[in-house]
Amino acid sequence: MLTAADVAAARERIRGHIRTTPLVQADPAECRADPAATVWFKLEHLQHTGSFKARGAYNRILTAAADGHLTDAGVVAASGGNAGLAVAHAAARQGVPARVHVPETAPAVKQAKLAELGATVVATGTKYADAYDAATTDIAETGALFCHAYDQPEICAGQGTLGAELLDQTGGVDTILVAVGGGGLLAGIAAAAEGRAHVVGVEPATIPTLHTALAEGGPVAVDVSGVAADALGATRIGEIAHAVATRTGVTSVLVDDADIVAARTLLWQKFRLVVEHGTAAALAALLSGAYRPAAGERVAVVLCGANTDPSDLA
Amino acid sequence: MLTAADVAAARERIRGHIRTTPLVQADPAECRADPAATVWFKLEHLQHTGSFKARGAYNRILTAAADGHLTDAGVVAASGGNAGLAVAHAAARQGVPARVHVPETAPAVKQAKLAELGATVVATGTKYADAYDAATTDIAETGALFCHAYDQPEICAGQGTLGAELLDQTGGVDTILVAVGGGGLLAGIAAAAEGRAHVVGVEPATIPTLHTALAEGGPVAVDVSGVAADALGATRIGEIAHAVATRTGVTSVLVDDADIVAARTLLWQKFRLVVEHGTAAALAALLSGAYRPAAGERVAVVLCGANTDPSDLA
Repeated sequence: MLTAADVAAARERIRGHIRTTPLVQADPAECRADPAATVWFKLEHLQHTGSFKARGAYNRILTAAADGHLTDAGVVAASGGNAGLAVAHAAARQGVPARVHVPETAPAVKQAKLAELGATVVATGTKYADAYDAATTDIAETGALFCHAYDQPEICAGQGTLGAELLDQTGGVDTILVAVGGGGLLAGIAAAAEGRAHVVGVEPATIPTLHTALAEGGPVAVDVSGVAADALGATRIGEIAHAVATRTGVTSVLVDDADIVAARTLLWQKFRLVVEHGTAAALAALLSGAYRPAAGERVAVVLCGANTDPSDLA
Repeated sequence: MLTAADVAAARERIRGHIRTTPLVQADPAECRADPAATVWFKLEHLQHTGSFKARGAYNRILTAAADGHLTDAGVVAASGGNAGLAVAHAAARQGVPARVHVPETAPAVKQAKLAELGATVVATGTKYADAYDAATTDIAETGALFCHAYDQPEICAGQGTLGAELLDQTGGVDTILVAVGGGGLLAGIAAAAEGRAHVVGVEPATIPTLHTALAEGGPVAVDVSGVAADALGATRIGEIAHAVATRTGVTSVLVDDADIVAARTLLWQKFRLVVEHGTAAALAALLSGAYRPAAGERVAVVLCGANTDPSDLA
């Protein structure tokens, strides 16, 4: 059971390894929120490797190192995206090899980024599931440490340090809006904020993993499509995320792709922040009215990733 | 004589009108600085309208309003760039008209941005000097308030609030690296930090307005070229900036265009920050070794503008 104490321990463990990311206050009118609400943006997309995933990767790897489970066999991830980058970065800083399994269809530019961080990229099959299976075989054969993209306690606790950090920085909030893919970040933040703030998971209507799990009483595979599929494209919510969400009273809202695109554009045009579509979903909940803060409500919007091509923002 | 007291007064005046921009600590190794140095980035490019210029524009306009000098004739600027955007924004928020004079050669996209902020764009001639002359005629005929791009006390004092803010946020620094165009920001920061921190003006070698003025004992017109000419392209340093720089012991370093381009690329690749070339000059001073902090030195790098096309960062 993931708790705030796990997050606090993770925070001590990864201190100095990850960046403390800034928090800025935004004019609620510019976010179409009640003018008497307070809106904060947590600029976690400025984290190492451009996403919150560094927090979980460091916590997983440093925990293993402390327990004597980090060997020359190194670490393994299955991800062509942010999780892979974060694991590659943390492994390199800890001086252990990283193998990142991706499908052969993963874009060359993403594979090149992983290699640039020092990881060995292993391409297998055409689907994410093929890469995941290859990673499973890898760890069975080599004894390497597996870093799951979202559904491991150390990963979730690491991501949750973002929540603990923002609660400190704001001096307390009522509501935290966070985009949901596999739910590692949601789980961590909800555990960190349990009893202190209400957490709202925001998902594209085209990838409702949390929404469906809450409606049906457990993780269910959903179809994946839309502009945010590259970052939020898990087919089902993690078991840990579902358990923490249920225990802590997380609620769910859905946003359309058009609202996500508009939120990403607004973040550049009005705030000079460049984020991924998946990240923009959190703000889209305000802009679209899917989540409407009350007068006086203090809302933190987590901006969690910037591994995006900014060309279309020109 | 511009002093820290003027900046402190400006800070009170514009509080609530401008954004408090975040400060982040950067790994000195990632900036090629001594590993025992402390490096901060001041993220002023997240200011309203994407640059520090909002601070000066608000201070100029709010001072005039308090003195009864802000009339229905509104305000006037001569700028196709950041200064014009800032004046347009501040005027709209204060409910007075803004006329921004630009040369006919100003890019359509910049003229459109000004219009979007509610300004009337007046295009005259082919050079900046033509637009400046038109602005001079405008204020003589209409009695509108002129907002100079850099060489007015209220403008410089407003820009200086960035320096006062960063001194508060850091708890004190030894050195502040700031890019120089006309010198309004340099003047304000040097006044704010007088006796508390050393200010280094960083310029492209292709536009050495401060460097030449310090060498020759006063503002001198220089040739303007290079990647940063759109933002730092004043032909000579302002009188106020020269006076404050001389009084407070500002020093000057020059950087090459290649170093500026590399710094802008690094800010995106390693930090997910998108800035203008002119802004990147400040960091280029560290990356190129033009400025080398000592072990233990606390250095703040001012990132002052993001009105840039991010396409080439893809």
